[in-house]
Amino acid sequence: MTNHRIALIPGDGIGTEVLPAARRVLDAVAARHGLAFSYDEFDWSCARYLREGAMMPDDGLDQLRNHDAILLGAVGYPGVPDHVSLWGLLIPIRRGFRQYVNLRPIRVFEGVASPLRTAEPGEVDFVVVRENVEGEYSEIGGRMNRGFPDEMAVQEAVFTRAGVNRVLDYAFGLAARRGGRLTSATKSNGIVHTMPFWDELVNERAQLHPLVPWDQEHVDALAAKFVLDPARYDVVVGSNLFGDILSDLAAAVAGSIGIAPAANLNPEREFPSMFEPVHGSAPDIAGRGIANPLGAIWSAAMMLDHLGHPAAATDITDAIAAVLAETSVRTPDLGGSAGTSEFTEKLLELL
Amino acid sequence: MTNHRIALIPGDGIGTEVLPAARRVLDAVAARHGLAFSYDEFDWSCARYLREGAMMPDDGLDQLRNHDAILLGAVGYPGVPDHVSLWGLLIPIRRGFRQYVNLRPIRVFEGVASPLRTAEPGEVDFVVVRENVEGEYSEIGGRMNRGFPDEMAVQEAVFTRAGVNRVLDYAFGLAARRGGRLTSATKSNGIVHTMPFWDELVNERAQLHPLVPWDQEHVDALAAKFVLDPARYDVVVGSNLFGDILSDLAAAVAGSIGIAPAANLNPEREFPSMFEPVHGSAPDIAGRGIANPLGAIWSAAMMLDHLGHPAAATDITDAIAAVLAETSVRTPDLGGSAGTSEFTEKLLELL
Ligand SMILES: CC(C)[C@H](C(=O)O)[C@@H](O)C(=O)O
Ligand SMILES: CC(C)[C@H](C(=O)O)[C@@H](O)C(=O)O
Repeated sequence: MTNHRIALIPGDGIGTEVLPAARRVLDAVAARHGLAFSYDEFDWSCARYLREGAMMPDDGLDQLRNHDAILLGAVGYPGVPDHVSLWGLLIPIRRGFRQYVNLRPIRVFEGVASPLRTAEPGEVDFVVVRENVEGEYSEIGGRMNRGFPDEMAVQEAVFTRAGVNRVLDYAFGLAARRGGRLTSATKSNGIVHTMPFWDELVNERAQLHPLVPWDQEHVDALAAKFVLDPARYDVVVGSNLFGDILSDLAAAVAGSIGIAPAANLNPEREFPSMFEPVHGSAPDIAGRGIANPLGAIWSAAMMLDHLGHPAAATDITDAIAAVLAETSVRTPDLGGSAGTSEFTEKLLELL
Repeated sequence: MTNHRIALIPGDGIGTEVLPAARRVLDAVAARHGLAFSYDEFDWSCARYLREGAMMPDDGLDQLRNHDAILLGAVGYPGVPDHVSLWGLLIPIRRGFRQYVNLRPIRVFEGVASPLRTAEPGEVDFVVVRENVEGEYSEIGGRMNRGFPDEMAVQEAVFTRAGVNRVLDYAFGLAARRGGRLTSATKSNGIVHTMPFWDELVNERAQLHPLVPWDQEHVDALAAKFVLDPARYDVVVGSNLFGDILSDLAAAVAGSIGIAPAANLNPEREFPSMFEPVHGSAPDIAGRGIANPLGAIWSAAMMLDHLGHPAAATDITDAIAAVLAETSVRTPDLGGSAGTSEFTEKLLELL
């Protein structure tokens, strides 16, 4: 029996509805694979911020540190500015635990209509590897001459050789394991300091992975190609900002943002990694019990994979594929009328 | 008879093939609308760079200054780094002539298949207004510790109140003229200095345009929605980088990057504005006479509109719609087998 201690942060809105679903699925696969999970739940959220003035306590990272992994629902709440809610919880965890890889798999499933005419199930199957702790998301910068006509705001993007190399190595390694190809997204024709630097580093690191074919594209052209020919991609690596935009776009191309998962990885396992659906807290549908739980459930599968249980992870992703192909029971975002728990039960049946 | 003096910069690759087509169309509408054009051609290009060490002469901007408008083909050449070719020609013109609006109309035409299942001709018809001279495309920044493990690159994005306000006012005004809605694209949850500043300015400027409905979206979510529901957009405004990514994506959604035009506008007409197709120099098909000329031709129509001849502009865009709907003659990128000049002749017939 392998025991894992999991930190659960349901967060806000539908985060609190999809995380229990993920937990049910985890418990269902546990026995079969000789696993046991213990959970500690943390109420860190915008609700807490409104009550206590902070998204999480000062020693929040220390409370998480001795867990094997973190499962997060979603944060965000009308009235709490996004940069408060995110920089008070999500981003400090990503950075404090050096989760420098954000991994976002994209698949067109049978039973889910891609908005693209030509995207067939099975053909579109790629992964976006996003640099997750440096780059454009930077605290460095500020404002001058506030309120005056000559006011300005500056923002520094910072890319380090070590920070770019480690995410590139992860991406090359992933492409090698998949027997696939790496595409690097930059914008060196417009962003002339940091992006040519990234291009140089890809060229250098490629020498260490001589068997992995690779190419590079400008992010604008790549966004267009995600729509014109998504099947040609296998592993796409990009900066914090470009990875963010491309992975959301890719999730839409695959037919549902409600399904898309994300893993914030510290590949060296020095610190816990964090797993979260790509969707947000969705205040418009929160509280109605109709949120699609598959993003959270798939995120839990990625957690199992990271914890060294790929067979258990595959059980879950197979069940996700099965419940989507089956089409009789599904949440409203997928065109059905089932609630979160009915949909989860259907998936558990097929597990 | 109104005379206009036009600077032609064919540039590289298919730029030199599509610009003559645009010129033929301009000459064809001229007579009918009491217009006369005189052209000065400039060989500024990567070819010139390889020959003479510079994309354009030192006094390039002065040579262009006394023209009414600039029509540019495309720049870029294998072996010349993009940041050399672009920052040696395109970007200095945009900045030197304070072309702070980059306008990119997006339309799904009859006869052009959008890659989206649901995008019908007539329903998708919007405009991306891109800030074109400041923001993320900045010379400010550089590298430290070159070649060492602790090497880093920094890049400063700079947004000024005046620079953001003027493009927002243009976008609000355009939405008002179209009787439409403005959507502002930012990423305030990740880029915490410059993007919340932009959001504040949109809120302020909206007070001056009380009749224009508007909203704001995170660029990642907006990219996804361009694929899920492009028909809901009317005027979308964003920073230099976001406008770049969103407009390329939108052109793909509309079915062809070969058709998409761009206007780099100095709305005050203190300096010449510049018109260019969105596509690049396409070295892979250059020299074969098969490039789609519609991006350049539509750009010429935008030039006529800017010069105060909207009826002449509409003649051209109507002819573009007609030749696309007709489908018998078209270039290979649109699924046909015609060459650039045959396609142009067909359009001239329908004009
Ligand atoms: C070539 C490049 C610098 C340019 C840009 O990003 O501005 C192009 O992509 C465009 O959109 O005009
Ligand atoms: C909420 C926001 C800060 C976040 C990001 O951009 O990182 C989100 O969009 C994501 O992709 O996880």
